[in-house]
Amino acid sequence: MSACPVVTTVEPLPVLGHDVRVPLVTGGEVTYAALDYAASAPALRRVWDDVAAYAPYYGSVHRGAGYLSQLSTDLFEGCRATVAGFLGCREGDQVVFTRSTTDSLNLLASVLPAGCRVFVFETEHHAALLPWRDAEVTYLDAPRSPAEAVETLERALADREPYGPALVCVTGASNVTGELWPVRELAAAAHAHGARIVLDAAQLAPHHPVDVAGWDVDWVAFSGHKLYAPFGAGVLAGRADWLREAEPYLAGGGASRRVARDAEGGVEVEWHDTVARHEAGSPNVIGAYAIAAACKALQETGFDRLVERERELIARVRAGLADVPGVRVLSLFGADAPRVGVLSFVVDGWNSSHFAAALSAEYGIGVRDGLFCAHPLVRVLLDGDRGAPGECGPSDGRSLNAIRVSFGAGTPDEHVERFVRAVRELVTEGARWSYRTEGGRCVAVRPRVGLG
Amino acid sequence: MSACPVVTTVEPLPVLGHDVRVPLVTGGEVTYAALDYAASAPALRRVWDDVAAYAPYYGSVHRGAGYLSQLSTDLFEGCRATVAGFLGCREGDQVVFTRSTTDSLNLLASVLPAGCRVFVFETEHHAALLPWRDAEVTYLDAPRSPAEAVETLERALADREPYGPALVCVTGASNVTGELWPVRELAAAAHAHGARIVLDAAQLAPHHPVDVAGWDVDWVAFSGHKLYAPFGAGVLAGRADWLREAEPYLAGGGASRRVARDAEGGVEVEWHDTVARHEAGSPNVIGAYAIAAACKALQETGFDRLVERERELIARVRAGLADVPGVRVLSLFGADAPRVGVLSFVVDGWNSSHFAAALSAEYGIGVRDGLFCAHPLVRVLLDGDRGAPGECGPSDGRSLNAIRVSFGAGTPDEHVERFVRAVRELVTEGARWSYRTEGGRCVAVRPRVGLG
Repeated sequence: MSACPVVTTVEPLPVLGHDVRVPLVTGGEVTYAALDYAASAPALRRVWDDVAAYAPYYGSVHRGAGYLSQLSTDLFEGCRATVAGFLGCREGDQVVFTRSTTDSLNLLASVLPAGCRVFVFETEHHAALLPWRDAEVTYLDAPRSPAEAVETLERALADREPYGPALVCVTGASNVTGELWPVRELAAAAHAHGARIVLDAAQLAPHHPVDVAGWDVDWVAFSGHKLYAPFGAGVLAGRADWLREAEPYLAGGGASRRVARDAEGGVEVEWHDTVARHEAGSPNVIGAYAIAAACKALQETGFDRLVERERELIARVRAGLADVPGVRVLSLFGADAPRVGVLSFVVDGWNSSHFAAALSAEYGIGVRDGLFCAHPLVRVLLDGDRGAPGECGPSDGRSLNAIRVSFGAGTPDEHVERFVRAVRELVTEGARWSYRTEGGRCVAVRPRVGLG
Repeated sequence: MSACPVVTTVEPLPVLGHDVRVPLVTGGEVTYAALDYAASAPALRRVWDDVAAYAPYYGSVHRGAGYLSQLSTDLFEGCRATVAGFLGCREGDQVVFTRSTTDSLNLLASVLPAGCRVFVFETEHHAALLPWRDAEVTYLDAPRSPAEAVETLERALADREPYGPALVCVTGASNVTGELWPVRELAAAAHAHGARIVLDAAQLAPHHPVDVAGWDVDWVAFSGHKLYAPFGAGVLAGRADWLREAEPYLAGGGASRRVARDAEGGVEVEWHDTVARHEAGSPNVIGAYAIAAACKALQETGFDRLVERERELIARVRAGLADVPGVRVLSLFGADAPRVGVLSFVVDGWNSSHFAAALSAEYGIGVRDGLFCAHPLVRVLLDGDRGAPGECGPSDGRSLNAIRVSFGAGTPDEHVERFVRAVRELVTEGARWSYRTEGGRCVAVRPRVGLG
């Protein structure tokens, strides 16, 4: 199987950096293989070109009287409609531009109605696990199947005391295993129990169509930098009511309609009740424009083709890793569960950080090692011990962290081929250099061959 | 005086959009004159070029093992030092990347120690006036001189009950009048009374050197989009202690060092106590890089030259406006007070929105009309009535809002010349089209001549 190359039927989308060359410790240089899309994906060439075409026309938005201000305002406001279309939003849903998924979920956390309880699986990314600081949170144990996830949620929601407002937060695709979660069924469960649901689509949206109306989720959050649009913007989209009824997320200009001194010497503020309410400060127009450009590019390419291509790459990685002794792919729902192009694994006898460093230094491949901002999940997957320390340490046979490979619309077949070959060579032949963790970063120390 | 052209001794810095042509309602087209720098300035060509050069090397930061991840991490972290140097920070000061000045001040508001009282002049931008939602705020009346500002602050600080922790928030340059505030003296007054001070440098930093250590301000905030780097990032820089001791601004990955389930089924979090504490989520690497590029470009050009050039442009605008009957420039500290390139004015008998619309439609000049997110200040300047309505309305002889012209390092002499000429022509000859406010936007309706 390992000798069988990927033969994808669809071309990758052009991205920036596809031809960047990086040096190898073993001599020479190679084209960089960016296989850390789950953290940040390269910019689509189309996104960059659209931003470059717009940049000279950039102007202050919303209250500028000039031609470029009005053009920029129209383009910025138009981005909301593009994003709403991309997400399959309902009429009346709001599209708020934030800085990231983390920011989107912190915003949603800030608008929860009084007494709202939050339900979240321990398997979530910290961005979805931690923002609910002012709410009473029920953390649900990791389920071992999509059906168990739905049952676990239903039981917890039914048992809540008192039976008041509730919010469920769930990922569409795990940032660790890449596995798809049963969003539609979880939404139905939430609504059956009078709860609302927000979808963390940070890992889903770059790989898979999102259908807010069809899945009946109340809100969805995602980040531009994972959606091939790394210009500092993210999105929270969905129902307007909780957003409209809450205090503004940030206090400042743009969110305030009228500010005046009051009779007691204080200040009286009338806030907007439109989407502006939660977008105080000058918006990140270029960031929003980049996201809209990415949405258009993905839609025009067609998710059918993107999903098909990615499925072929995933199959190749899975087959390649299955072929190497001592490699264990981490999974909650089983090896054959549907997933996006995100896989984490450990290698017997290897410190994951050293393995990832060797992939970079000897093969020019960029992956990630660690706990992927999902500490409880990775610990469950590694050893079932939810409280085990999460720091990267010397290998003692037990993996304390994992290696994650992730890819997407811009990944050429060759990157995946090289990755599979590199894993096999590292495991069967060993690394050619030795590695050491220094100051939190794993570095190549010296060649193993000749210098022992 | 009005016939005398600007003869600046220094060239403007190259910016994007300098050659964008826009149509005029009167026929033909002209090069757009962006004179709304105080809202958002165009990108410096140098900033754009630096971002374009970096973009192919963009990679996930902080925990990626790949070459581009480590390169991007080093560049991103290096941006902090560049910004710290630009601001004249002290050893040990932290540089936090935010989304904007509004975000920076909301972050600072979230870290105030218990019982901290906030002192802020009513003259501040809403971004500085409103974020202190959880604190007891003393709003100080608009002073009529820098010395009165210092006296007013000293008296208020001395009188506070109880005499506990306090924060003063003050602008370096007004976003309405452009006037410089006595930052060094206000900082001394704050410290003499056991208070801290944060400088809103949103309008100052693009025009004037900032000296955190020399002025002895505790924090400073500014936005990239006003500093010729419109990529969605801002900065809060200054003392680490309050930042380190407070709850993280956003909860999520990056800010959390270790997350684990606890014995009661909850989640236990250990937060970073470095700058990462308040930067949860993937950072806006390109935004930070753009700000650092702008800082370098301004420093390499030299503020001496920039200030000298801007002074010439300000003198030209002031002389030009003084020359036109019925134009009143708004000022708190007097006509000759030192200022940056920001001036607001009203024109007798004109609705400011219509005037601004005419500047755009008939001259291709982009200015701003309104209350500039500083409602109490503009009302004080217009008529002394702090509670007057702030909506744009039909002209009844009393100005309900104002017109603001603002410029900076990229402004060519011709833009200022054209602006001065346009104001004179509009006032003395009238607009050639009539204007109407529709849906919050002022539009040209029809030519006055012939169809009047």
